[in-house]
Amino acid sequence: MEAKKSRNIKLILSYDGTNYHGFQRQENAVSVQNVLEERLSRLFGHMITMAASGRTDAGVHALGQVVSFQTTGSIPTERIVQAANSILPSDIAVLSAEEVEPDFHARFSARGKTYVYRICQGAVRNPFQRCYAWQIRERLATAPMEEALQIIIGTHDFSAFCAAGASAKDHVRTIYCASCETVGNKIEFLFYGNGFLYHMVRNLVGTLVDVGKHRLTPRDFAAILTGRDRARAGITAPAAGLYLKEVEY
Amino acid sequence: MEAKKSRNIKLILSYDGTNYHGFQRQENAVSVQNVLEERLSRLFGHMITMAASGRTDAGVHALGQVVSFQTTGSIPTERIVQAANSILPSDIAVLSAEEVEPDFHARFSARGKTYVYRICQGAVRNPFQRCYAWQIRERLATAPMEEALQIIIGTHDFSAFCAAGASAKDHVRTIYCASCETVGNKIEFLFYGNGFLYHMVRNLVGTLVDVGKHRLTPRDFAAILTGRDRARAGITAPAAGLYLKEVEY
Repeated sequence: MEAKKSRNIKLILSYDGTNYHGFQRQENAVSVQNVLEERLSRLFGHMITMAASGRTDAGVHALGQVVSFQTTGSIPTERIVQAANSILPSDIAVLSAEEVEPDFHARFSARGKTYVYRICQGAVRNPFQRCYAWQIRERLATAPMEEALQIIIGTHDFSAFCAAGASAKDHVRTIYCASCETVGNKIEFLFYGNGFLYHMVRNLVGTLVDVGKHRLTPRDFAAILTGRDRARAGITAPAAGLYLKEVEY
Repeated sequence: MEAKKSRNIKLILSYDGTNYHGFQRQENAVSVQNVLEERLSRLFGHMITMAASGRTDAGVHALGQVVSFQTTGSIPTERIVQAANSILPSDIAVLSAEEVEPDFHARFSARGKTYVYRICQGAVRNPFQRCYAWQIRERLATAPMEEALQIIIGTHDFSAFCAAGASAKDHVRTIYCASCETVGNKIEFLFYGNGFLYHMVRNLVGTLVDVGKHRLTPRDFAAILTGRDRARAGITAPAAGLYLKEVEY
C-alpha cells in the first residue's frame, strides 16, 4: 500500500473570542483550538493536532491568527476554506488556507506579530462595544500617549509589562511600531513587534491609559519601562479590547 | 399624609438584543422589559410598569428605543441615567432621562420611527458581525435596490410586507424616507415612517435583497407592493441586522 501523501497546511483565522476560554486546548472548557481540532478532524478524516502562532486569552479576539497542521486527508487545499467554514461555528472563520513547506510551524516560524487594542470613550457605555473594546468614561489625552508609545519602540527588557506568573525567561523584545489612532470616540492602539510577553499588550495599554488620564507622565512611563518593575505599571487592560491582527513569517 | 408627587419619566435606551427574547415582558424568558422593570423598580423603590414605543423581536437591537413610566420615587431626574446604568447589565444602556407631561405615552404619543438594517457582504463570513448584520455572500447591486426604495416612499397599503399572523387591521402606513448607503462591504438601509407593521422592515429588506441579486426587478417589487400578497414578497431578513434607531414625538 502506497503511503498517503502528507501536506503541511497553514490557515489564517478570524474569531470572536467572547464565548471561548481562550485559544489553547483545555480539558474542561471550550477553547477555539478544541472546536477547530474537533471539526477539522471530521473534515480531514483523521485526528488533527495543530500549532498556533500563540495563544490568545479568554475574551481576546483574532483578525488573523495562524495555525498549521499535518494532514493525510484528501480534501484539495483550494476547497478547505469553504468546507471548513461550512462546519465551523459562526464566531470562527477560516480566511485562507495554503499548503506550506514541511518545516513551516505556526509558532516557531513566526517572525513578528501585530496586535491592536480598541478603546471606546464615552460617559455612557455602548452596549454594542461591551465585548469588543475597553469602555472608558474620560476622554484620554492622545499626545502624551503618543509620546509614551515612542519610548517602547526598539529593543527593551519588558519585565515591567510582563505578567507575574509568565514562564518566559528572556524578557527582551523588539517593538518595530507602536501607534495610536483616534476616530471619533474610538482609540485604536497598534503594536508590531518580534514577540510579546504574556499580558504585555494589555499591561502596556493599562499603563498608557494612565498616561492618557494624566496620572502618569511620559517620563514616568519611561521610568517604569527601565525600572523593570511590574508593580509600578498600570492595570492589565480588559481582554475584550485586544485583537491579534496579523502574524508575520 | 401628603400624597407623593408622581412624575412621568421618558427614557431613551440602547440595547444589544442578542441575549434577549425581544423587548416585551415575557413569563418564561428574559426580555429587555423584564430586566428594565425589575432593576428600575429597585432603583425607584416601587413597582415600575413601563410603556415602550413598540416591541422589538428577539435578536433585534435598539439605538434609541423609548420607554415611559410613572414614578413616585425620590431619585432626581438628572441622576437617573447614571444610577440606572450602574445597575443595568452591560448590554442595556440608558442614554437619557427626562420628566415629561403627564399625558406623554411612549407608544401612543409616537409620531414616527426610524429603523436601520445592516448587511455585511463577503464570501467569507465576519465572526464579529454574526449578531449585528445579515451576512450575504454575493455583492448586491445597489442601483436597483435604490430604485425599489423610491417606490415605497409615500402612503401605501403594506400588506405584502406584513407578517401573516399580525394583529394590525389597518395596513396603510406612510414612509417619509427610505434609503440605502454602502460603505466598503457594508450596506445600511434606513426607513423612516409614521409606523411599521409586524416584520415589515425585515420583509422589505428580504425583498430588496432579491432585487439586489437581480432575482426581482424594481418593477416586480412595485407589483408586489400593489398586489398586497405576502406570498410574493421575499423572505424575512434575519433579526440580527435590525436596529430601532429613533422614535419621534
